[in-house]
Formats: sequence, structure tokens, C-alpha cells
Amino acid sequence: MGKVLLVLYQGGEHAKQVPGLLGTVENELGLRKWLEDQGHTLVTTHDKEGENSTFDRELVDAEVIITTPFHPGYLTKDRLAKAKNLKIAVTAGIGSDHVDLDAANETNGGITVAEVTGSNVVSVAEHVVMTILTLVRNFVPAHEQIERGDWNVAAVAKDEYDLENKVVGTVAVGRIGERVLRRLKPFDCKELLYFDYQPLKPEVEKEIGCRRVDSLEEMLAQCDVVTINCPLHEKTRGLFNKELISKMKKGSWLINTARGAIVVKEDVAEALKSGHLRGYGGDVWFPQPAPEDHPLRYAKNPFGGGNAMVPHMSGTSIDAQKRYAAGVKSILESYYSGKEDYRPEDLIVHKGDYATKAYGQRTKKQ
Amino acid sequence: MGKVLLVLYQGGEHAKQVPGLLGTVENELGLRKWLEDQGHTLVTTHDKEGENSTFDRELVDAEVIITTPFHPGYLTKDRLAKAKNLKIAVTAGIGSDHVDLDAANETNGGITVAEVTGSNVVSVAEHVVMTILTLVRNFVPAHEQIERGDWNVAAVAKDEYDLENKVVGTVAVGRIGERVLRRLKPFDCKELLYFDYQPLKPEVEKEIGCRRVDSLEEMLAQCDVVTINCPLHEKTRGLFNKELISKMKKGSWLINTARGAIVVKEDVAEALKSGHLRGYGGDVWFPQPAPEDHPLRYAKNPFGGGNAMVPHMSGTSIDAQKRYAAGVKSILESYYSGKEDYRPEDLIVHKGDYATKAYGQRTKKQ
Repeated sequence: MGKVLLVLYQGGEHAKQVPGLLGTVENELGLRKWLEDQGHTLVTTHDKEGENSTFDRELVDAEVIITTPFHPGYLTKDRLAKAKNLKIAVTAGIGSDHVDLDAANETNGGITVAEVTGSNVVSVAEHVVMTILTLVRNFVPAHEQIERGDWNVAAVAKDEYDLENKVVGTVAVGRIGERVLRRLKPFDCKELLYFDYQPLKPEVEKEIGCRRVDSLEEMLAQCDVVTINCPLHEKTRGLFNKELISKMKKGSWLINTARGAIVVKEDVAEALKSGHLRGYGGDVWFPQPAPEDHPLRYAKNPFGGGNAMVPHMSGTSIDAQKRYAAGVKSILESYYSGKEDYRPEDLIVHKGDYATKAYGQRTKKQ
Repeated sequence: MGKVLLVLYQGGEHAKQVPGLLGTVENELGLRKWLEDQGHTLVTTHDKEGENSTFDRELVDAEVIITTPFHPGYLTKDRLAKAKNLKIAVTAGIGSDHVDLDAANETNGGITVAEVTGSNVVSVAEHVVMTILTLVRNFVPAHEQIERGDWNVAAVAKDEYDLENKVVGTVAVGRIGERVLRRLKPFDCKELLYFDYQPLKPEVEKEIGCRRVDSLEEMLAQCDVVTINCPLHEKTRGLFNKELISKMKKGSWLINTARGAIVVKEDVAEALKSGHLRGYGGDVWFPQPAPEDHPLRYAKNPFGGGNAMVPHMSGTSIDAQKRYAAGVKSILESYYSGKEDYRPEDLIVHKGDYATKAYGQRTKKQ
């Protein structure tokens, strides 16, 4: 009979209006009754920042900590050191970079970090395709024109293109990157490219009609559209800085739905302003929530468009929330039953070691 | 050596910044030199409304009239009666409903009305998919939140869904409708439906994985997303009125990139306001340009979102302009050479009769 600590965003009136908004402090992933019926204690909070946050105070005796990538309770080394009872940290969604994984492997003899793999890959892949189209077709300035009572086709058509016959490349072709390429296939792009340490199977490459490029720089130099679909780790942090962006084609579009810290925000803003990038869009920020003065809120290209940013939401559609709430419950069942019969693909670290190549290969114990 | 009258929108500074903005009065589809070198006279104007517009004054002795669907010079019966020299009316783009086709068949022994078929079908199909994703994933309120310095995931996630597992139906499955379905195929929709008097070939249905529904009402009752891809004619004018919209699923999304007059704007605005429609988007209006008080500029669903309207631009991307400028030139070459070796699919009316089933089947002379 242990304590479960749940860190989620506040839904307020919205959570009351829409009960399907499960990933909120109000609706608690639909877990309260189920947990309490088994005798567990559930503490839910959105308050996760600063020395004396509810998160900090409550984690000291929590057995289970659950959070989302949309409003993550960061499990730093310091916090893990204080969480003496912690056995398992679950990400309701995908992406466990808010946990210091090396430290997790040392905490209480090695805690389990698990996420709901697959729960929102489709949602994110759809968001990527939406953002590509929105940027390439210059949607935002056009819609804003309508909203302000104006009508000037030339002013927006001048920066509107077709996706057809463009070169699109993905940085990493994992669960999301591959789904993006598959969805782009019927758009008759000139080429679909990818950069990844691990190649797709030849038959998958053929089916999608895509091609691997050996170096990232070489891929970027060919792409009209670049979509980032790699995890955040020490080799991707700050990857898209001024220098790498300068390798991209002039007037290309960059989409990031992976993690905000993979780009250097000031460098992206500067590239948009100069027109080297024609557009930047996505839903990830560093830090999160994005402060009011985050430069990527307001960065525009010289034509006053090219920004398709939204808050971190691509993986938290109503449909995705249903899937990751069910996935968290399933992980907890595996844990509480003592069987630990997790889906292997859900495990990030387990029994003191990395269970996935996505984050850990570089630091995996040999 | 005749007179060519070209009715296009004003590009202003935008046309100067981007020479590829061909469909503007400034850049004249790139035709001036070519026409003048052959001894023809070119008159270009954007001024097309009212009794004494340049369009009205100049059409009386024009041999060729060229316009676009984005800023159409309407060739009404009255105007056609005044155009004593007119031989051919060319639409730089697709959609010739701005011409009174019955009257065209009676004008000067039957003028030719031709359009550049295929020049922007891909552009429009892309715009449809973009608009579906934008509405279903609730992009607009989310981006506006970012722009105003705010951050509230719940407020936007509450109306965000995945396209996966939704039922999508197209009204008509012609060149655009079919391309929309093909692009939706990898999105794993629950079903792809279509309503059309003419069925797709069985092998095409199978390839796309779509199904024909016998009646429009029956299709609408099953669809989460409805996309309108039929021409405007007397049977589709005002088709989506209060009564037909009431047959749609509650909370569904409606996309119209065909023609504004196919929907009753007040009825769509009312259905959005009540939440019966969760969203409405597209780029066509009636009339065009949309007046400042057009209700579909500002109509929102009860959550304050659900509007993805833009000015009439889907078919006028920089890529599409290149294609339809080339297509107009090719039609004029066929005309001036006297060979009249038009591409059959470009002809709407010719030699006093309808040359296409798209508009004319109902009124075709038997």
C-alpha cells in the first residue's frame, strides 16, 4: 500500500467541460478510484518548480511517480537522492528525458523508468505533417488576414508553396520519423530522406520510397523541409545551432516536435529573421512552459510569417490521452502484481541498466 | 492582331518582391512580351466590379479574356452580350463558374471557355489535407495562445483529436477529391468515403481503400470529416444549408475548398456557434473578395476555435502559378495557331456546346 505521486497540468474549467481530458490534475488519468480501491494513496499536483514545490515535498516518500512530457516533473539527481521509497517512475506519454537516467540507475538500487511507447506516436506524426503543410502553404498569415477583416491574396500567396516536388528529410527515423515519412509518401515529394545511426530495413525503405543519407550535414544541404524526430540526449542537445542551421538550404523549413533543447532558440530565431529559414514550427520548447519572452513565440521571417508554434500538445490529443492513461494503468498492473511483465518497449531503465538504445547506448554499461 | 483582356488581382509590393507571383496585374502571367511580339494588345486590370469598371469598359472589343478564380472577372449574360469580339475566355486555374456557360454557348455563335485543368489540383488537395489536420488537431487557438504570450495546454488539448480512426468523406471524387483521398490513405482513417454520380473504377477504390456511398445524406451521417470537392452549379449552389448540415454528425468538421456558394454561410456560422459543427475551414467565399463582415471570418465553435479560413489561395501557390501561367500560354498557342488543338480536358464549352460533364451534363443539349 504505497504512495503514488502524479504530476500533471491544470485543466481547470477545461477538464470539467471535457472529461476525456484525462492528463490533468482534475481527471488524474482516471486512476484515483482504481488506486484507492487497492489501498494506495494518490497525491496529484501541478506544482513542480522551485525548492519547496508540492512535487519536492511529496516525492520523499512516494513509491510511484507519474508525470507527462507536457508538464514534466523533472527527476533530477538531487530529487532522486531524496526519493528514498521510489521504485518506479512512469511517463504518461513518450520521452523520459525529464529523468536523470544515469542517476535513476543508481537510485535505491536502480529504479524502473517506463513510458507508454506508441501511445502518441501517431498523434505526433500527424502534428508534424500538419506543421509541414501549414508552413509550406503559409497558413498562419493567411488566416490572420481573414481574422482581421482583410483580403490580400498576393500578400500571402507570395510565400505559399506546394509540398509536392520538395525534398523532405527526417532527423532520426524511429517510431515517429518513420510514421511521418509514411504519411508523406502520397504527397509526391521529390525525395524523402532520413539520417539515423540505424538504417531502415531495405524492404521498408523501398515501401516508403525513402533514402538514407550518411551525414546529417549532407542531408540538410539537400532538404527543403527538415523534421526533427530524435530523442534529446547529450549528443542532440543544442544540435541545431547557428553552425548547423547554416548548412541548411536557404529558405527551407524546420519542424521540431521532438524536444525544445535540441535547437538553440536564439539561433533559430535569428535564422528566421534573416530568411535563411523560411519557417519554424512545432510544439516543443525549452524550458517548458515557455516563458512569455521566449524568442520562438514571436520570431518571423522577413515576410512576417513562418511561425507555426503551439504549446506542447501534439501528443496529448483527446485520443492520445485515452491511450496513455490506459498504458499507465497497464504498467502499474505489471508493477503491483510483482510480475513486472512490462512490454519490453516501454522500459527505459530497469534493474540498474538501460533497457533501450534510444537514450542509453552511449552510456550503457558494457 | 486582337486584344487580350487580363483580369488579375493586384500584387503591389508583393509582386515586385517575388517575381514568381505571376497571377498578378504586375507580372501578367508572364505574357506581355510574348503577346506583344505577336502584335496583340494586352490590357490588364484588377478593376472588375460595378457598372463602369475597367473590365466592363474593356471587354466590348476584347478577343480573349483571361481571369483567375482567385479574383474572377465574372462573365455574366449581360457582359457576354456586350463582348461582340470575344472568341475565347480562359481561366488561369480551375473552375469556370464565373462564366455564364449557357450564355457563352450563345455568344458570338459560341465562344470557347477553357481552363488549365490539373494546374492546381495538387495544391488544392494539399490545402484540404492541411485544413483537415489543422481543424482536427485544433491548431489555430493553440498558435494564437503562443502569439499572445500565454501557455495553457488544457485549453487547447480539450478540443484536439487525431485524424487516425476518424471517418472522412468527400463530396465528389474528381481530380481533387481523389487526390485528397490518396493523401489520406496512410493516416489510417477508420473509413474513407465518397459520394459521386460517377463511381471510381473498382481497382482505384481498392488501391485507395475507399467506399462509395449512394446518398449524400447517408454519407454525411457517418463522417467525422467532410470535404467538399464538387464544382458549383445549380444543383450544388446552397447545398450545405441548415437542413443538410443537420444530417451531419454532431461535432464533425467541414472543409470547403470548392466554391463558397456551395454552402449557406449563415447556416454554417450558426452550426459552428452551436457546436453542431466542431470546425469549418477552407479558402472559398461568396462573394469574393469576402466583405469585412462576412460571417465565416469570425464564426467560432463554443470553445472559441474551429475556424481555419484563409483567402482564396489554395490553388495559387508559387508552384501552381508557374503551372497555370504555362497552361494559359499553351491554350493561347492552340487558339492563335488556328489549330485549336486544345487538351480536351481543358475545354469547358466549345463550338456552342458543353465539352465537360463537370458543369454541363444537366443542361447539355441532347
